[in-house]
Amino acid sequence: MYLSDIPLDEAWRRFVEALEKESRWQPLESESLPVDRALGRVTAEPMWARRSVPHYHASAMDGYAVRGRQTDLASERTPIDLRLGEQAAYVDTGDALPGWADAVVPIENVEPVESPQGKAIRLRTPVPPWSHVRPLGEDIVATELVVPSGHQLRPADLGALAAAGYAHLLVWRRPRVAIIPTGTELVPADQVPEPGRIPEFNTIMLAAQVEAWGGEPRRLAIVPDDFDRLRAAAASVAGYDLVLLNAGSSAGSEDYTARVIGSLGEILVHGIAVRPGHPVVIGMIDPPGESGSARRTPIIGVPGYPVSAALTGEILVEPLLRRWTGLPATQPETVEALLTRKVHSSAGDLEMLRVTVGRVGERIVAAPLSRGAGVISSLVRADGLVFIPPGVQGLEAGERVEVRLYRPASEIERTLVTLGSHDLTLDLMAQFLSQRGLRLASGNLGSQGGLVALARGEAHFSGSHLLDPETGEFNISYVQRYLSQIPTTVVALVGREQGLITAAGNPLHLDRLEQLAGGKVIFVNRQRGSGTRILLDYHLGRLGIPASSIDGYDREEYTHLSVAAAVASGRADAGLGIRAAAAALDLGFVPLFHERYDLVIPNEYYSSQLLRPLLELLADGEFRTAVAALPGYDVSPMGKVIWSSG
Amino acid sequence: MYLSDIPLDEAWRRFVEALEKESRWQPLESESLPVDRALGRVTAEPMWARRSVPHYHASAMDGYAVRGRQTDLASERTPIDLRLGEQAAYVDTGDALPGWADAVVPIENVEPVESPQGKAIRLRTPVPPWSHVRPLGEDIVATELVVPSGHQLRPADLGALAAAGYAHLLVWRRPRVAIIPTGTELVPADQVPEPGRIPEFNTIMLAAQVEAWGGEPRRLAIVPDDFDRLRAAAASVAGYDLVLLNAGSSAGSEDYTARVIGSLGEILVHGIAVRPGHPVVIGMIDPPGESGSARRTPIIGVPGYPVSAALTGEILVEPLLRRWTGLPATQPETVEALLTRKVHSSAGDLEMLRVTVGRVGERIVAAPLSRGAGVISSLVRADGLVFIPPGVQGLEAGERVEVRLYRPASEIERTLVTLGSHDLTLDLMAQFLSQRGLRLASGNLGSQGGLVALARGEAHFSGSHLLDPETGEFNISYVQRYLSQIPTTVVALVGREQGLITAAGNPLHLDRLEQLAGGKVIFVNRQRGSGTRILLDYHLGRLGIPASSIDGYDREEYTHLSVAAAVASGRADAGLGIRAAAAALDLGFVPLFHERYDLVIPNEYYSSQLLRPLLELLADGEFRTAVAALPGYDVSPMGKVIWSSG
Repeated sequence: MYLSDIPLDEAWRRFVEALEKESRWQPLESESLPVDRALGRVTAEPMWARRSVPHYHASAMDGYAVRGRQTDLASERTPIDLRLGEQAAYVDTGDALPGWADAVVPIENVEPVESPQGKAIRLRTPVPPWSHVRPLGEDIVATELVVPSGHQLRPADLGALAAAGYAHLLVWRRPRVAIIPTGTELVPADQVPEPGRIPEFNTIMLAAQVEAWGGEPRRLAIVPDDFDRLRAAAASVAGYDLVLLNAGSSAGSEDYTARVIGSLGEILVHGIAVRPGHPVVIGMIDPPGESGSARRTPIIGVPGYPVSAALTGEILVEPLLRRWTGLPATQPETVEALLTRKVHSSAGDLEMLRVTVGRVGERIVAAPLSRGAGVISSLVRADGLVFIPPGVQGLEAGERVEVRLYRPASEIERTLVTLGSHDLTLDLMAQFLSQRGLRLASGNLGSQGGLVALARGEAHFSGSHLLDPETGEFNISYVQRYLSQIPTTVVALVGREQGLITAAGNPLHLDRLEQLAGGKVIFVNRQRGSGTRILLDYHLGRLGIPASSIDGYDREEYTHLSVAAAVASGRADAGLGIRAAAAALDLGFVPLFHERYDLVIPNEYYSSQLLRPLLELLADGEFRTAVAALPGYDVSPMGKVIWSSG
Repeated sequence: MYLSDIPLDEAWRRFVEALEKESRWQPLESESLPVDRALGRVTAEPMWARRSVPHYHASAMDGYAVRGRQTDLASERTPIDLRLGEQAAYVDTGDALPGWADAVVPIENVEPVESPQGKAIRLRTPVPPWSHVRPLGEDIVATELVVPSGHQLRPADLGALAAAGYAHLLVWRRPRVAIIPTGTELVPADQVPEPGRIPEFNTIMLAAQVEAWGGEPRRLAIVPDDFDRLRAAAASVAGYDLVLLNAGSSAGSEDYTARVIGSLGEILVHGIAVRPGHPVVIGMIDPPGESGSARRTPIIGVPGYPVSAALTGEILVEPLLRRWTGLPATQPETVEALLTRKVHSSAGDLEMLRVTVGRVGERIVAAPLSRGAGVISSLVRADGLVFIPPGVQGLEAGERVEVRLYRPASEIERTLVTLGSHDLTLDLMAQFLSQRGLRLASGNLGSQGGLVALARGEAHFSGSHLLDPETGEFNISYVQRYLSQIPTTVVALVGREQGLITAAGNPLHLDRLEQLAGGKVIFVNRQRGSGTRILLDYHLGRLGIPASSIDGYDREEYTHLSVAAAVASGRADAGLGIRAAAAALDLGFVPLFHERYDLVIPNEYYSSQLLRPLLELLADGEFRTAVAALPGYDVSPMGKVIWSSG
């Protein structure tokens, strides 16, 4: 099967045309639900009041119903007595007024008296007609519009509709979506997968999307990559409004999705020029059996990479489900932000760039996340998407971009942005801050990258462990150089051990840097600018070991844990990193150096309300205990102000 | 029982203190859910990756796994052959690399060859190590934080957690809330209520609120106003985290809620200085039976007026449910707006003013809605609340206020604001516009009020039917006077009949205005400034009938339908209004005059993108048909430009 990318607009045009032909580009059938089960559903008809609210003249107070006119002449000197029964009647709040009454005197304003004709009440001020009465229709008059059709029902709407005479509401039915996971390599997500086997989590995500968008998802059993079995599975799906096949939508030897769709109906689209996500198939499949009058069912072949799958949901499934549930197209909340770094883009594609977003001072900044279609953590961390249209080769650092937000803008205001060196304590910090209602958005740029970002006003603070080879001090000279224009405070976070991360049991018996040279050991390095890289280069220089003598010196990883993962997987024999990373993956560790990891904070933020919870955390016993429990950490310097230019 | 208002802060302080004593001011117990059933739930623990993603080195292409180093010298002239089996192995995308391999050559870059040793592939360019490989941990490294605790789970989170080894997730249990409707006057909402009986819709609304805030509501049977039965109902509720009693929370003779709570435990608060909503009871009730070790249960006596009930939910129940479900306090989206008119406020109370909000030109305006605690339609129409703090006597027209939004700000941008004369066609217009993704926020100020609002920049357009007694023309001279500084266009909407709305069958045989004088007929009037009022005064003047001779001349209603409702209920014998209003309530109608109802639109909006769907509607056959179906309407002038100052 061929794969030929077309623009997203064109794909939608073909899809809508085919849906219209089947009378499927419209809300599904309506259904009648009891009013107390209709929250969040969308009205399928305008709802006009069937009765007035209140539907009678109701007393607004506890008191006596009277005829206002009979009290016109009441005064302190000439009180008026009204006989109970004919001229005055006790009413509670909400009671109907007797037919002859048109006003209510609150009970605290009447004197009970005995008159020759029986019990009465005495009034000393007039009661104008309609005082303390809620007249019929005060709230809603019968025939008025209560809610229009296409309205998503909220609690107050349900109350008003019940009040206006609706016991049942006509709403659009929920779309039913069948989701078929395909792939010989897949195992159910609750099993422990062998290497080469992949836990089937895409349909968990797709089903949750369908649920979030008002549909009823059904995840079917995993089908291996086998044309006949896949065809049988897709053909046997009946009673659904939409079928999602995930994955096999590309053009590889085991990608059967397009062929299956073609054999069951018609392929409308194979390939959309979007990134991530281009190998999408859109088609319509015939109804099962010979039922010539039944309509064709839309089917989407969803790409297998998880980010591609999720974004295919957003650009194809969500608009369809909104249409079917009677809602207008989504209008994502957007915010204008400054891009923190240059991004290249393939000119032919619409690129959907995941970014984190935060307000740093007066500016809102958007930091691009990993662009890999397989990196689902980028979606977890994303605050929104930047759409780079086809024809645009890329975006410059500092460029103004529109971000389609995944979170309410108010959450962006409660986000601390940290760019710099990675440390495990930042994950713990994120956890503790989230308990205080704050979010920590972190990007790993290495220590120097973080200081550059601070100088550019792109982050609230940076983690840094930069050794000055001349003074033996950490961070201060770098901060003076990079942030000479910005009053800044350096606060210690932790002391920590740096050393060689090795395979478990240290099988190569490494205990010195010298052993890295000579090609017997495969090394994995950290990226240029990171504190660990500077530490390594400093010591290599002291020992006179040329970088070129180290096998793997050029292979860079961006975090301690990635270095540990490279060793754990056998890709490398050793890397320089912290003990906690080695311990996390049960690896060997050879301590070589001590270093201090500081937080570098411009004074503007150091003294801000926003960062106060972060600074309080440094004195929080629970946080210190949690950090101290990580192997290789020393919390004694935590919170100490190392230096301040303010 | 006494009722003594205290500030909201103080009420919360007492409530939280009592909840803390019972260890209830914290998330409820956690529960373990399958990952595919946890959408929208809140994590009860930080979730650290249990395995890396990918958990092995995975091929990123269909191709051949090789050792990169063995290809270093490959070139066009010196191709390198790698034997299948030992030196090259076919892999599909996602397959695990063999232990000896560290790179993948895409299938399109290899030539299959036969060598003396068997099948092989021929390469003509080097393949650097790790090309086309997704290394172990590229996405997530085991032990990294995937999501913190207190995080509300989204589709991508579920995918990432399933990928990182989670089959079940520990989330906070949903709060169970029992809701007891009380009141002898209540009937279930699906019955037709007699006068004096009220359909029980408050608990439908309260239950929907609880559901929307992540709780599990249970509506119990209606209990009449009887101390013993109410006490028995409240005492028998077991297994709930919160009990809501609605209503009977005030201090009237049949208000038993406070006494019941006192008899079952402790009253913490009776009366909060908020408006609407002050007769709130907060208490803690003892566990049923003699179970001394069980904890007390919080109970809230919710006021009976529907707006009071809904707002009590918002200020007391929502924060409690968020605490229990592990979410931080809501941060409502807010917007700054200009108040369209002066509002008085009782200085001792926190007033929660319902407003509609729209953007008119450069300004965002907030128009106050009805402030009655019984007017639930004000909540349906509200776009947000303005909090007027205690100690503030009121707000001035034009004052800058902060609105806590009920709708996303993006919806505010798609809102057409119309202030002016009321007409039934505006309800139809709202319905048709909502199908086009626009919202119509309308306020009834009468025709002249609408022109004043346009002059002040508070609305996009006004409905107007102002007769000029000198020219016999409608609207133009008024627009010239009120909007002399603002280029404006007047477009006809409809022609309509005005006449006397009477009881069905016109029992008083009314057929002329003269009959209103003399006290035999009770009249109901429209408010000063309305077109109908001007029409009336014009003809009274012509006929020489003094206003003082008309019984009810001073009783003002704000819409045609309210006038009709006054007649339908017997409050009045006649009112001047349109035929459609009479027909809607099956009343009599005596046609007296013809008039034209126009839309007055400043040119700035007349030519705007925002209003285009409105103008298109005037030529829409479906809309014209719907309007023509209303009795007494003539659609022939619809869409005609009557006058333009542009």
